[in-house]
Amino acid sequence: MEQLRMELGANSYDIFLGDGLLEQAGALLRLDRRVLIVTDEGVPADYAQRLAAQCAAPFIVCLPQGEGTKSLAMFQLLLERMLNAGFTRTDCVAAVGGGVVGDLAGFAAACYMRGIDFYNIPTTALSQIDSSIGGKVAVNLGGVKNIVGAFYQPRRVLVDPQLLSTLPPRQLASGLAEAIKAGVVADEPLLALFEQTDARAQMQEVLLRALRFKKQIVEQDERESGPRKLLNFGHTIGHGIESVCGLGGLLHGECVGLGMLPMCTTPQLRRRVEAVLEKYGLPTRVSFDPDAVFAALTHDKKAAGNTLTIVTTAQAGKAALQQVPLESLRVLLEKEAKEGIGR
Amino acid sequence: MEQLRMELGANSYDIFLGDGLLEQAGALLRLDRRVLIVTDEGVPADYAQRLAAQCAAPFIVCLPQGEGTKSLAMFQLLLERMLNAGFTRTDCVAAVGGGVVGDLAGFAAACYMRGIDFYNIPTTALSQIDSSIGGKVAVNLGGVKNIVGAFYQPRRVLVDPQLLSTLPPRQLASGLAEAIKAGVVADEPLLALFEQTDARAQMQEVLLRALRFKKQIVEQDERESGPRKLLNFGHTIGHGIESVCGLGGLLHGECVGLGMLPMCTTPQLRRRVEAVLEKYGLPTRVSFDPDAVFAALTHDKKAAGNTLTIVTTAQAGKAALQQVPLESLRVLLEKEAKEGIGR
Repeated sequence: MEQLRMELGANSYDIFLGDGLLEQAGALLRLDRRVLIVTDEGVPADYAQRLAAQCAAPFIVCLPQGEGTKSLAMFQLLLERMLNAGFTRTDCVAAVGGGVVGDLAGFAAACYMRGIDFYNIPTTALSQIDSSIGGKVAVNLGGVKNIVGAFYQPRRVLVDPQLLSTLPPRQLASGLAEAIKAGVVADEPLLALFEQTDARAQMQEVLLRALRFKKQIVEQDERESGPRKLLNFGHTIGHGIESVCGLGGLLHGECVGLGMLPMCTTPQLRRRVEAVLEKYGLPTRVSFDPDAVFAALTHDKKAAGNTLTIVTTAQAGKAALQQVPLESLRVLLEKEAKEGIGR
Repeated sequence: MEQLRMELGANSYDIFLGDGLLEQAGALLRLDRRVLIVTDEGVPADYAQRLAAQCAAPFIVCLPQGEGTKSLAMFQLLLERMLNAGFTRTDCVAAVGGGVVGDLAGFAAACYMRGIDFYNIPTTALSQIDSSIGGKVAVNLGGVKNIVGAFYQPRRVLVDPQLLSTLPPRQLASGLAEAIKAGVVADEPLLALFEQTDARAQMQEVLLRALRFKKQIVEQDERESGPRKLLNFGHTIGHGIESVCGLGGLLHGECVGLGMLPMCTTPQLRRRVEAVLEKYGLPTRVSFDPDAVFAALTHDKKAAGNTLTIVTTAQAGKAALQQVPLESLRVLLEKEAKEGIGR
């Protein structure tokens, strides 16, 4: 078992990584109390049940699968469930699922009685690699992702790679996109691992490196005022594509992968990243309307005034923030639609 | 103009106190951006308009008056209003009203894009004395007060006693109950001021002392893990009475006043507090069902397990926390119903 400590002063917490950790939850988490276990229909039901078996007073809520679940309506449902079960400040919430479940359950934990303990047990590659740590919790509103939420750190996170064995290959690849991102932004050896071996066969190493990367960034900037924006590499255009094309069936990681390519500022690096995406079955081309993607971008929360902070990389492992006029992004999107990822 | 600094590290902020401050908002707050001004139908409409006149891009939302407005539905309404008006992370929310408006608007500011600037301009005695500072924001759910919320500090608070001139005398008295509380808990000279003069004629002094008291407590304990519980003096039984009798027409401060009496542990202090309540037209007797009040109490969020932390005072200015079994509170309520405040 690997153990990482997220150092955030009073909000510090431990991340445990290892096969079979779900079975050790009773020893690693404080489950001798009321525990709201939040999961969804896409997660094998026995994961939540195995956790419940280790709790003094478990209450399982199984939500519909999909981004639509990250809503204020579901937020209210979780709060009402806790209220009706008599949850007090000393009880807790545990998420067993992907990013949707973690973001929603974490936000409910953040707000119930102004904050009760939150445990995250991510079950998808995307959430194990990225969304389960860092303390960004949220729901969507009016079609805008994560527009309502909080910075609220979990009390502990259990990352059990064994839980990924039930994941469809495409979901696994989508999650790997965030680890590839970590490599491109700050960890060249991780990118090389993706190139030279089959990363899927060494998930513990991939997870450890990706979590270490994210930990360092979050420790520097818990509330995303500066360096944390590096995590947005691939996400600016990626989110735009996701808003516009997501309903057409593209997954989050697939959109992030596509969004990374225009942000590689040398042809060498772009080719390298493109080859890795292809190797793991991630798309490198998508048909999109640049005006629609641009409109989605300007609605995105990272937009402040007439400029936007984007993340670009000229060399693997050395990404940097760049403030650009919105207009230049429109031009970039038009170019990409014709000659780049939209070609 | 008086200026108090709430020292809370990165969450520190200034509280300005003085007649006519509403007119100086443009100089004291950063209003050169989108400002969601939240008010309600009980507040003179020109207060919000006078603030709006000082904003670059004001958006006034006037909500129905009353506790029912502190709901998740109204929370969503404010968030949607900001979303539709294109609010970004650098825009802000300003509350112009009493505790209901401040708690709701503050919670919306806390959650929109995971937190944007929040200004509070309290217009009632209760909110000027107590609820506008300290950073507790919330809405009600399922009949339970403040069960969903956050600790989220305002960026600045403007306390303008002139705004109280439009307040009905009973509302003013209800607010004074919280200042009387401050006197009983920690500031004997403030209690003496209530006894020896007409406090209503020197609101600036009353407000200054009450705000100083609250500031000191909040600085010691931003998230209510310990000393801040002193602020709950009168509130344990008060909230219970409010839940049960509030619909019958008792105001919050009136309930707090009633709740203080059983927590005075010497007959001398109890008589003294009772005389002050009577002097300012606050009730000292109420007919109540002790079982119903006890049931409401155990639903209250301060209940954790089988004990409750209450605040008692034997001598003015020297309150203390006390952990008591729930059962002893039931006995106390039965006694009070027969021989005390219920007599």
